[in-house]
Amino acid sequence: MNIVDTYKDNFLDYLNSSITIKEPENLYKPIHYILQLGGKRLRPILTLLTCDLFGGNSKQALNAALAIEVFHNFTLIHDDIMDSAPMRRGHETVHKKWNVNTGILSGDAMMIVAYQCFENYEPTMYKKLLTVFNKTALEVCEGQQLDIDFENRNNVTIAEYIKMITFKTSVLVAAAMKMGAIIAKVDDAEAAKIYNFGLNLGIAFQLQDDYLDTFGNAETFGKQIGGDILENKKTFLFLKCIEIANKSDVKELLKLYSDKKGNAQKVQRVTELFINNKIDENTIKEIESYTNKAFEILNSLTLSDEKKAVLKNFGLNLMKRTV
Amino acid sequence: MNIVDTYKDNFLDYLNSSITIKEPENLYKPIHYILQLGGKRLRPILTLLTCDLFGGNSKQALNAALAIEVFHNFTLIHDDIMDSAPMRRGHETVHKKWNVNTGILSGDAMMIVAYQCFENYEPTMYKKLLTVFNKTALEVCEGQQLDIDFENRNNVTIAEYIKMITFKTSVLVAAAMKMGAIIAKVDDAEAAKIYNFGLNLGIAFQLQDDYLDTFGNAETFGKQIGGDILENKKTFLFLKCIEIANKSDVKELLKLYSDKKGNAQKVQRVTELFINNKIDENTIKEIESYTNKAFEILNSLTLSDEKKAVLKNFGLNLMKRTV
Repeated sequence: MNIVDTYKDNFLDYLNSSITIKEPENLYKPIHYILQLGGKRLRPILTLLTCDLFGGNSKQALNAALAIEVFHNFTLIHDDIMDSAPMRRGHETVHKKWNVNTGILSGDAMMIVAYQCFENYEPTMYKKLLTVFNKTALEVCEGQQLDIDFENRNNVTIAEYIKMITFKTSVLVAAAMKMGAIIAKVDDAEAAKIYNFGLNLGIAFQLQDDYLDTFGNAETFGKQIGGDILENKKTFLFLKCIEIANKSDVKELLKLYSDKKGNAQKVQRVTELFINNKIDENTIKEIESYTNKAFEILNSLTLSDEKKAVLKNFGLNLMKRTV
Repeated sequence: MNIVDTYKDNFLDYLNSSITIKEPENLYKPIHYILQLGGKRLRPILTLLTCDLFGGNSKQALNAALAIEVFHNFTLIHDDIMDSAPMRRGHETVHKKWNVNTGILSGDAMMIVAYQCFENYEPTMYKKLLTVFNKTALEVCEGQQLDIDFENRNNVTIAEYIKMITFKTSVLVAAAMKMGAIIAKVDDAEAAKIYNFGLNLGIAFQLQDDYLDTFGNAETFGKQIGGDILENKKTFLFLKCIEIANKSDVKELLKLYSDKKGNAQKVQRVTELFINNKIDENTIKEIESYTNKAFEILNSLTLSDEKKAVLKNFGLNLMKRTV
């Protein structure tokens, strides 16, 4: 079993023993449900791994890892309500299985449960971790708001888009690693570096999501290829195409995106426009750029080469994913 | 100006300088809006007052007071969504003025803003306050869930009802006072007593809400008299009547409450049934019982008689309210 699987198993054991169904059941059942739906558990694994790599004891990082995973899943419940999404990880979303009010209230309770996870840390560590957590959690909300705002705007820049995905996704990955480092008691400079490593890796990860949604392998991707195109999502691919394509291609792309009901033909034509304008190559270049930035930061850490290699491999595996 | 008004003014000054509209505006405008809608500011006043009475500096309690008021208003936004309530304090509710998604997301952000308010406290105080805050916040969610559960149950007992209003309302009043005491560095036993004082006063306050909704003075009450009856709410009055009335009255009351569309006649008849069964007197007795329990606890505190009198007057004024 590789090291990542070991962390995942340890985390799941801790999750299962910690998150039980209490009274009132109608509040706690949905919390238990979404936390048992699976998922990559990327963030808690990173907290545990980072803590160990910096010489800490990853067992002491379990509570922070759990807090981050509970918070992440709370955002999924509320985001799914906002998006009217019926499915999550192949199962019904909470508001679909129960109702919107249950989704709102159980989500609220989850956020508080996440905060409670930190109560085992001594006061100085507690405050240090919560200060990171508060800032990050608020940024995640701001990222979600930017995402909603962008739906009604036609002049979103690539820079704004990167800021949105940074807040909505990457800051939590970055904070997950920083908390592991804080629990290992590294100095602030080193904690800031690992945060930036996570931030850049998170951005690369999110851009790869955009890439795979159009250019992924239908057999391994798990979701429908072209889903973003059908939903007229202003992804990196779309925004880059608007930025660099000629007038006629931009006009055609905008026309295709003004159609609310999409079909396979639309996906095919948009994909052609992307390829004609080398958006696929451009996106890969952008992903590599953020990945390389992450690896540069990794090199500047005071970790042994062996430990740097663990993080580098983790990043490389993440970037090789087809799912 | 009386002491309560002074605390209110100091609190509002602090609120106005602290809660400003940041970017993204669509996230922060609703937060600013609901916090400017007014309200009694009961909880933050109690935090400041309690801190002073126990020999602390109420200026140091401003951040905790703000956290509690921000959290309370977050619950109002989400509760109003769950209740589909169009109005709050004479103005449009957040989800009505904007939309449900904005209400969900701005509410989420408010909860985190509430947590951030504590960051000015040193670590030991910080953790002490947050531990109270976490427990209380989760109980408020549990209380809201019990309230929702009760809508679909026909066998709710008075004891269950008291538990529900305790969690939904009183624990936050109690925690507001306890935090003021913690900031004044009182010992744990004294902090527990002031918590129980607030808890009993909060229950009395909530029962009075039930009473005023049916037996209040239409000219001073501000809301429509009989609103709870029209909505078939299982208030203390209703549950007490079910408990003590004879079979024929219970049957008539249940029949009246099975009618989804109410009118003035329904309000009149239910009120008659309540009066015939002395529910008004019974409710006043119950309110007095909780108020007296609060005052007994007050007497056991190690405060001077003068300071006890301040809290007693505060409680008496609260119980004399017609609004």
